[in-house]
Amino acid sequence: MSLPSKSQPRVVIESITPSVDQGRFAVKRIAGDDVAVEADVFADGHDAVCARLLHRSASDPAWRSTPMTALGNDRFAAGFVVVELGLYEYTLEAWVDSIASWRRGLIVKHSAGQDVAVDLLHGAELVRATAARAVAARADESVVRRLDQWATELAAADSSIAQRVDRARSDELLELAQRYPDPEQVLRREPPLTVRVDRPRARYSSWYELFPRSTATSPGAHGTLADCAERLADIAAMGFDVVYLPPIHPIGTTNRKGRNGATRAAPSDPGSPWAIGGDTGGHKAIHPSLGTLADLKRLMARAAELGLEVALDLAYQCSPDHPYVREHPEWFSRRADGSIQYAENPPKKYEDIYPFDFDTPAWHELWTELASVVDYWMDAGVRIFRVDNPHTKPLAFWEWLIARVKQRSPEVIFLAEAFTRPKVMYRLAKLGFTQSYTYFAWRNTGPEITGYFQELGRPPISDFFRANLWPNTPDILTEHLQHGGPAAFAARLVLAATLGASYGIYGPPFERMEHEPREPGSEEYRDSEKYQIRTWGPDPAGTLVELVTRVNRIRREHPALQDDRGLAFHRLDNETLLAYSKSTPDRANTILTVVNLDPHDTQSGWTDLDLTALGLAADQPFEVHDLLTDARYPWRGARNFVRLAPQRPAHILEVSR
Amino acid sequence: MSLPSKSQPRVVIESITPSVDQGRFAVKRIAGDDVAVEADVFADGHDAVCARLLHRSASDPAWRSTPMTALGNDRFAAGFVVVELGLYEYTLEAWVDSIASWRRGLIVKHSAGQDVAVDLLHGAELVRATAARAVAARADESVVRRLDQWATELAAADSSIAQRVDRARSDELLELAQRYPDPEQVLRREPPLTVRVDRPRARYSSWYELFPRSTATSPGAHGTLADCAERLADIAAMGFDVVYLPPIHPIGTTNRKGRNGATRAAPSDPGSPWAIGGDTGGHKAIHPSLGTLADLKRLMARAAELGLEVALDLAYQCSPDHPYVREHPEWFSRRADGSIQYAENPPKKYEDIYPFDFDTPAWHELWTELASVVDYWMDAGVRIFRVDNPHTKPLAFWEWLIARVKQRSPEVIFLAEAFTRPKVMYRLAKLGFTQSYTYFAWRNTGPEITGYFQELGRPPISDFFRANLWPNTPDILTEHLQHGGPAAFAARLVLAATLGASYGIYGPPFERMEHEPREPGSEEYRDSEKYQIRTWGPDPAGTLVELVTRVNRIRREHPALQDDRGLAFHRLDNETLLAYSKSTPDRANTILTVVNLDPHDTQSGWTDLDLTALGLAADQPFEVHDLLTDARYPWRGARNFVRLAPQRPAHILEVSR
Repeated sequence: MSLPSKSQPRVVIESITPSVDQGRFAVKRIAGDDVAVEADVFADGHDAVCARLLHRSASDPAWRSTPMTALGNDRFAAGFVVVELGLYEYTLEAWVDSIASWRRGLIVKHSAGQDVAVDLLHGAELVRATAARAVAARADESVVRRLDQWATELAAADSSIAQRVDRARSDELLELAQRYPDPEQVLRREPPLTVRVDRPRARYSSWYELFPRSTATSPGAHGTLADCAERLADIAAMGFDVVYLPPIHPIGTTNRKGRNGATRAAPSDPGSPWAIGGDTGGHKAIHPSLGTLADLKRLMARAAELGLEVALDLAYQCSPDHPYVREHPEWFSRRADGSIQYAENPPKKYEDIYPFDFDTPAWHELWTELASVVDYWMDAGVRIFRVDNPHTKPLAFWEWLIARVKQRSPEVIFLAEAFTRPKVMYRLAKLGFTQSYTYFAWRNTGPEITGYFQELGRPPISDFFRANLWPNTPDILTEHLQHGGPAAFAARLVLAATLGASYGIYGPPFERMEHEPREPGSEEYRDSEKYQIRTWGPDPAGTLVELVTRVNRIRREHPALQDDRGLAFHRLDNETLLAYSKSTPDRANTILTVVNLDPHDTQSGWTDLDLTALGLAADQPFEVHDLLTDARYPWRGARNFVRLAPQRPAHILEVSR
Repeated sequence: MSLPSKSQPRVVIESITPSVDQGRFAVKRIAGDDVAVEADVFADGHDAVCARLLHRSASDPAWRSTPMTALGNDRFAAGFVVVELGLYEYTLEAWVDSIASWRRGLIVKHSAGQDVAVDLLHGAELVRATAARAVAARADESVVRRLDQWATELAAADSSIAQRVDRARSDELLELAQRYPDPEQVLRREPPLTVRVDRPRARYSSWYELFPRSTATSPGAHGTLADCAERLADIAAMGFDVVYLPPIHPIGTTNRKGRNGATRAAPSDPGSPWAIGGDTGGHKAIHPSLGTLADLKRLMARAAELGLEVALDLAYQCSPDHPYVREHPEWFSRRADGSIQYAENPPKKYEDIYPFDFDTPAWHELWTELASVVDYWMDAGVRIFRVDNPHTKPLAFWEWLIARVKQRSPEVIFLAEAFTRPKVMYRLAKLGFTQSYTYFAWRNTGPEITGYFQELGRPPISDFFRANLWPNTPDILTEHLQHGGPAAFAARLVLAATLGASYGIYGPPFERMEHEPREPGSEEYRDSEKYQIRTWGPDPAGTLVELVTRVNRIRREHPALQDDRGLAFHRLDNETLLAYSKSTPDRANTILTVVNLDPHDTQSGWTDLDLTALGLAADQPFEVHDLLTDARYPWRGARNFVRLAPQRPAHILEVSR
């Protein structure tokens, strides 16, 4: 076996955090975050090692360098703050630090009364070599001068040994020397790791979904984007910041689905907005009954005035009447009889929808065209996309598309609507989706919720997966909501809004606590808006609007709820009650939420609070302030009594220390 | 952003196990082991995916392929048996399985009463394309014929739909087709991962260390290799299989250490065997007082007759009198005054030893010469090396050296004597050391032992780190042994020999329970053999020889103790008692050991056995047979009473079901 081609640096770098699949994917952060980097750094022998963190933003190719601090057990740490949106890179350099090693030995020997005259000369040699490297690195002249002088002082025969050892103790000069290690001994981790920096709304957002065609003022009429704009003030007043509209494009007529998903539509049935494309256009067109591009822009302008942002749906599929089908039949699969393959999930057939064949020989043209759809709506001002079923399109397509979009506009947010197997959901998040729907809707018991959110909260998952919690969607009316009555709606709202920094509701049916399924055992809504116009009109009495408004205000006023880091669960002696807290990193704001998961009965119990997570000392008295009711309770230590009736199934408690 | 250069396979492979640092280092196994490989394999959408494990030995470049089985949740598994010593490679291939996907849909639709005529034609197309690929892959003609016929049957207009669907159900034909996926859709994990296959002694070994110079029959005389050979029968009778000799080379006289490590040696002091090199040679010479190469070969031949193997010490350092110092001064560092740098760990100085400068400009020559030292002793027949302080030499040196040796002779075993920080110890094991010393000597309480061995037993650590447990060494007389009396020696022996499939004792002082330190607070032996000759002579009464013999026989007769996999700890209501079990993978042999960790008092308590780990049902009666005393106890369920006095501080219980 031949020798290694060159002498390798003696140092080893291992186990860098944060890291997603060893740097294959970017870590996600928000502008302003501190990226705390750690790594194991060590070498053979007893010499000191030195490590520095290198980091740079995509816009500035010059690396910035931060010395790393030893945490003990060969672990080193440093951090950097990400400021600009887009990609940052970071990596580590490490080396055996001959000057620090020498100095440590010198001081020990001198303290033990040993002769260190030769050691001082050795140190002077090391420092002189460092000064030479500083020259080669075009260091400031004053730096070179200081290093040269240090070497001279260490070697100075006319000073006492004690004086010279004292000079060796200079931390300032050691740190100066550490900037110029021997390049041959420096190991750099290649390739660098990456951070994707998003805007704050990627982490903290409150979504409201509504069908614009249901916003008309006269019952049964096809609502317009202009009608929808009229609804925005109410939505903003409830405290939401993202309004998400299902597809607004023309809808096909061939094999159009009727009310409640009937295979044959009545002539007046409007069809599913997800059956995109008709006579009047496809993914870049607006349904004529909704209005025009100008109407959309007016809607968005009105939203902006109210502090709302409009999210559009990105559903890459076609009705049989989509212009693509006629113009680019090569973009679709064919059945053995020559017909185009419709969507299916056997035995279910979706004959009103044709999926694209992403593997078509013409995939270059297809992918480019699909990307141009995003460009089109971005040109119109859209910066948030909810992506329909991304898990049924190639993962490589999304990785390419999202990188392409974010290179142009790093502020764009993509929410992945993938309700599929865990590993596929995680992969979509890794490859670039900004936020992800979750299994939250089906996690109802304490252990289910605790286990799931502890999993999401642990690195590396917490470094790439940002949960967006929805208690309902047009496709998901859970059994729990069907049977739990108003208490279930209230509890699920509080859970979504306090467990998740990002959450959303499919608004009108949720506010009104609609709970009738299409048929027993189904999660579809009866008379679903997917297939018919529902003119909701003004909110009747007894809706959840007041609770929603209050919860969103609590979220706005309490930064602990605007971040999923710092989530901790607390034990109770009654499993039907769930308690968890969120704190800001500086512990300035701490919110403890307690929810009664039983929608039918009053539940009470004693907490066993994790006082460390709350920043409280054992037996310390503190006050909790229920932000829902404004009640205040004096508590002390871990054990406190809680009682929640179905009429008011949650406490959102601000903890005062 | 440009499009990806070609359409990528849709499938993803993640989280392969076993894997050490993502394949950077080899996984360790023993010839005959089954390597159980698992991975996450998935793709977008609902199609079936297929995965196969590829594996090959270094001696046969042809890949062998094993289909992987779906375990659920996108996890797939397969295994292969390693037979030859040396390196194996393994990797995965995976792809979206269009035929399995088609077949699944076909069957569901047919069962739902849907028309599948077009689907059958589609399947026939897929199978025909597969047949064409089989032709391209030079498959056996009969295979191509069977695939073609399958396609014809699926498409056969003269058969009924039911008959054709029935043909589609053939698992045999599906498996045949799965051998010929579309190469463009196949993802292979590159580069492959590696397995280092060692001989069984790498996993299961019982070591005995003795200084050959202390084996003379007349007290005070310098023992010889011939004297040492006379001792072997006793060592074999005790049941050991490796005899490890500290360095047998000439010893320097310059700055030689005296008795008890005195800075100045008396003229009669023999010096430390680790101060290697003198007038009569260096690392390839034998100390003249010990004998000749012929004597060593006779010793090894005698050992082989007795089923023993001789391990030599590999200590890469020189006395000032080593020929290398004269012939290759460029291989050593110089102090600022021109003298050669001796070993030091400030404030300690080891002036009888010069370390090599592994980074010397002449490192090529140095490394090559050091490797030739191993070659030399291998030529003499040595196949086990205990490596002295590997952590003070560059990690890259060891990685190169061990790979080089094992390429020539994969049966060679290297034991790393690195008592240093955990990450450095693990790195040495990763880069190639076959076995490693551990912190066992200093782990005395139940939680300490449990925590440490649970850590060592978990992948990936268990995939690369093979512990060798030593209760004592010439450098380590622990405080516990100094003060614990005979009960401490007996308990530590049982712990080492039953926790570790590999263990060793520094024999003569351990048998005689020597426990006097050089000075209070020291872990050095008083009158240590490192610095003087100790003529142990025949074993006096009251030694541990009988216990050692019995424990080693138990190890030989019980395969559960020959492997560190299958270690499980059991709870007791008395923390001073420690219980753990080992089982063979087939559970044919299970040994439960209970040790009283208190050397001074009798301890008793009730077990809370992990019945799953023992393969027992709740409340099942079973018998435990104490292999130390031959007593048998009827036990039942998890809760059983145990009482151990210092006179007999352990049970080694065989569990009979």
